[in-house]
Amino acid sequence: MLTCRSTRELQRFCAQGRLDRQTISLVPTMGYLHEGHLSLIREGRKKADLLVVSIYVNPLQFSPNEDLESYPSSPERDAVLCEEAGADVLFLPGHEDLYPTDYQTTVSIGTVADGLCGASRPGHFNGVCTVVLKLFNLVQPNVAIFGNKDYQQLQVIRTMTRDLNLDIAVIGMPIIRDPDGVALSSRNKNLSDRERTEALCLPESLALAEKLVLRGERDSASILNQVRAHIACRELAEIDYVTIVDPNTLEILSGNIHSDALVALAVRFGTTRLIDNRVLRLSHESTAGDNQGL
Amino acid sequence: MLTCRSTRELQRFCAQGRLDRQTISLVPTMGYLHEGHLSLIREGRKKADLLVVSIYVNPLQFSPNEDLESYPSSPERDAVLCEEAGADVLFLPGHEDLYPTDYQTTVSIGTVADGLCGASRPGHFNGVCTVVLKLFNLVQPNVAIFGNKDYQQLQVIRTMTRDLNLDIAVIGMPIIRDPDGVALSSRNKNLSDRERTEALCLPESLALAEKLVLRGERDSASILNQVRAHIACRELAEIDYVTIVDPNTLEILSGNIHSDALVALAVRFGTTRLIDNRVLRLSHESTAGDNQGL
Repeated sequence: MLTCRSTRELQRFCAQGRLDRQTISLVPTMGYLHEGHLSLIREGRKKADLLVVSIYVNPLQFSPNEDLESYPSSPERDAVLCEEAGADVLFLPGHEDLYPTDYQTTVSIGTVADGLCGASRPGHFNGVCTVVLKLFNLVQPNVAIFGNKDYQQLQVIRTMTRDLNLDIAVIGMPIIRDPDGVALSSRNKNLSDRERTEALCLPESLALAEKLVLRGERDSASILNQVRAHIACRELAEIDYVTIVDPNTLEILSGNIHSDALVALAVRFGTTRLIDNRVLRLSHESTAGDNQGL
Repeated sequence: MLTCRSTRELQRFCAQGRLDRQTISLVPTMGYLHEGHLSLIREGRKKADLLVVSIYVNPLQFSPNEDLESYPSSPERDAVLCEEAGADVLFLPGHEDLYPTDYQTTVSIGTVADGLCGASRPGHFNGVCTVVLKLFNLVQPNVAIFGNKDYQQLQVIRTMTRDLNLDIAVIGMPIIRDPDGVALSSRNKNLSDRERTEALCLPESLALAEKLVLRGERDSASILNQVRAHIACRELAEIDYVTIVDPNTLEILSGNIHSDALVALAVRFGTTRLIDNRVLRLSHESTAGDNQGL
């Protein structure tokens, strides 16, 4: 595995790959890799001849009051995991290389970024789009792979990719969970034992939403009330949002739901903000099993 | 010459070209081609194996009060000129193809777009960047060619290209002028005879600035006052701006100028707004000749 620390080195490697008619897959991450990331990397390995994994904690997508400083990091372990999972290149860029002092270009994304995390984190998705577009341009991948846990991020990137006429297949992969159901997240490291125990209410509340729909409940307000009530009874949980939206446009679904819907939530435990989501299937192929591979 | 009317058709052609290891040059235009455009197209012909010319009047770069509706058009003549100048592909996209109804992604550019035309035309350069980025992604050219008349546009696109890590050589070409010195522009068509006669004051005033510098004048305010006075004595000319800026950053140069500087101006004649510029050379290789090929 080649470790590239400069954009020039990465561009050179990828340009040579294209000249050799190799296809390329890209898995952008912020590091502190867990099984969720590794599932993306393994999928990337299958999808193309060359696999590039990037690790970069992008300051553009953090507000001043957010956890940029405390975002966990384990570069040596990450490198071992990437190599084991079959990466050809690990890209570890420096800030000055990606954002020189006179840097002045950003991507702005519209309605798909307005609700959910976009409402709680103003500018977040513009920062995500900007860095992902830069990575796309550096690597020029055929395939880019993201996790469904950051569901809105996935839809935002799909929208940007379509709008900017990028010839890249954007793939979303199922959420990977701990045995108790809590979605894997690098931020779980920052939870106290008690917070981690209480975080179980997130997947529980999503399972509750699914159970309600299976039983015939269609009123989104009623479903949301019960999901919120389940979370609110945990002492340390502070709800940021719990919403039911259209899985493609992310528009809020109010009243009765008539087709597949996404229940998405963000909840704070102390300074740690966790997100999770689940697709509520109403289409006739609906199953009660894992339905994250939308 | 192939005429592509859909993004898919263009993408397919360019992808095949890349597979065949052909280099590609791109000349984006808004049509109603004149010798200025043709000089770009001929340069594009020299610079790569395949040459794509696009003609699209991009609504995103026009404000509601601007001349989108009256922008001149001559598609049949343009096609003949493109073919004669050696284009392999003429791209004539439809609005719905480039901007579907749920389109929501734009590029925002910073300080390089703040002054000059960016100050008079809010949002203009974000619109330019967005459509140029889309064309860049569709064509994936090795070389893209723009004219120096739209000097700020050229610097904006260079900035975007660098910031977004696009592996594209952006080339600026000298301004092409009518025999009397007026810069060629598709908008000249919309001038009355009297306006066209008065428009001569633009190149005259730039020549005056150069003459002043050659004589040793260094005070930017003094140069600007004389340039403005020369234009202001024409009855139909209404100055939008006349400015002296750094040729790279486009920051305003006040006080004495110490190195190469750009004098740039925009002047309205009735509803037609014309722009022009000239580099004032102070470096030791300075010449009094045509100095537009910066």
